[in-house]
Amino acid sequence: MKKGDRPIGVFDSGLGGLTVLAALRRALPRENFIYFGDTARVPYGTKSPEAVRQFSGEITAWLVSKGIKTLVVACNTASSVALDAVRAAARGVEVTGVIEPGASAFAASGGRKVLVIGTAATVSSRAYGRALRRAVPGALVTERACPLFVPLVEEGWSAPARGRRAAAVTRLAAEEYLSRYRGKGYDSLILGCTHYPLLKGIIARAVGGKINIIDSAEAAALEVRRTLARAGLLRPSGSGRAEFFVSDAPRRFAALASALVGIKPRRVGVKRF
Amino acid sequence: MKKGDRPIGVFDSGLGGLTVLAALRRALPRENFIYFGDTARVPYGTKSPEAVRQFSGEITAWLVSKGIKTLVVACNTASSVALDAVRAAARGVEVTGVIEPGASAFAASGGRKVLVIGTAATVSSRAYGRALRRAVPGALVTERACPLFVPLVEEGWSAPARGRRAAAVTRLAAEEYLSRYRGKGYDSLILGCTHYPLLKGIIARAVGGKINIIDSAEAAALEVRRTLARAGLLRPSGSGRAEFFVSDAPRRFAALASALVGIKPRRVGVKRF
Repeated sequence: MKKGDRPIGVFDSGLGGLTVLAALRRALPRENFIYFGDTARVPYGTKSPEAVRQFSGEITAWLVSKGIKTLVVACNTASSVALDAVRAAARGVEVTGVIEPGASAFAASGGRKVLVIGTAATVSSRAYGRALRRAVPGALVTERACPLFVPLVEEGWSAPARGRRAAAVTRLAAEEYLSRYRGKGYDSLILGCTHYPLLKGIIARAVGGKINIIDSAEAAALEVRRTLARAGLLRPSGSGRAEFFVSDAPRRFAALASALVGIKPRRVGVKRF
Repeated sequence: MKKGDRPIGVFDSGLGGLTVLAALRRALPRENFIYFGDTARVPYGTKSPEAVRQFSGEITAWLVSKGIKTLVVACNTASSVALDAVRAAARGVEVTGVIEPGASAFAASGGRKVLVIGTAATVSSRAYGRALRRAVPGALVTERACPLFVPLVEEGWSAPARGRRAAAVTRLAAEEYLSRYRGKGYDSLILGCTHYPLLKGIIARAVGGKINIIDSAEAAALEVRRTLARAGLLRPSGSGRAEFFVSDAPRRFAALASALVGIKPRRVGVKRF
């Protein structure tokens, strides 16, 4: 296999990372991808850093054994607490997380006061706070955990098609988490969890006003393109394909991928750890 | 160690099983307990039967190695799909799940038309339907998955102390799941997940009317007492103690056990699989 034909590895705790895969495919339509969702151990956001590091290291070693040319950690929790373990297991393969690209996008937008929302583990790690203050010295950063957003997305209660009352539950939960930040001068909000782009409209209404909503997925996709170009690893031609693997319940994954993200995997393999 | 002094093993995917442990301690105040919560892999309710069987078998083998005299599967999902795997790993130690005791309590109450609520895995398994129709031939059984109830409990949004809007989210979610069964002649409702007793008031209001709410924990505790008495394994005297182990995040477990169930573990050990 030519070097450029090797796939790009992407992993997440479950299906949230598919929003990152979608951005990657838009930015890199010629590339092949191999996606892994750790559905046997999802969610990562309420687990300890040690557990997330162990899981992420195992997945990285397996993806590297599949011959990937670069690796995208499409999970904010793993990017926050496990990037060191991923790099150690990656044996020299370049690793891109979603935190640094999100911070760069904030800097590029000229923002000063930012609200970051994510899982409990991401927020506890303070990884966004550090990255954002490195990117914009003096930035005012508030971080807030919203643990119910992932189960609400996975239950499909963010989609208007599920009915008015289901959507009202999601709206009310967003109000409970976010309305206290309304009118407090935030210029930016970072969606610090790969599930959250699927709630973007509801989140925007809850936080109100003219706030710039930053989705790290787009920023990470552009960063990966730069990384591959620099290393001469871009695939020069062809139409890219994606392979999908999970650690449990492949049919549930395929159904949710289609219903929530509009990605229809032809086949979902199973790899248990 | 005398036979009767050996502990009773209890396991769950996380902390929901503590409602069963509380019932066991009320029914058996002299007994010693060893509780395991699989917090590294929680929740079980959205995972496949194969995964839940693997996890349950591993935990059972470990508890048996700790010298337990009987085993309580304090998780409806594991009781629904993994009791065979648990019995195979239990090496002759008696195993009590929560499904059969719940069905016996329904039969004893004289009920005929029952709504069972639980996780997606419990409901998909149809284990309650089979057990209830065996206990009450001709019983009318409806099963309904309520996947958001566990994360709502774990976020603390069932407790009035968390404020009006948080409680309103939980009430509205309960309405969305349950109001369609109101006034439809159900005489009984089974709380088919060990987290749900913590939402009992909200669930009762959503389903309305004079419905008998059955909590399998109490029924399971009485069943365990009968099992031990039959085998001559009751502890004759003393005041019982409980040991706690989890597979991840012991401090989070201790904090939630105290806040949600009122159980304050002095120490929480970690056992990883």
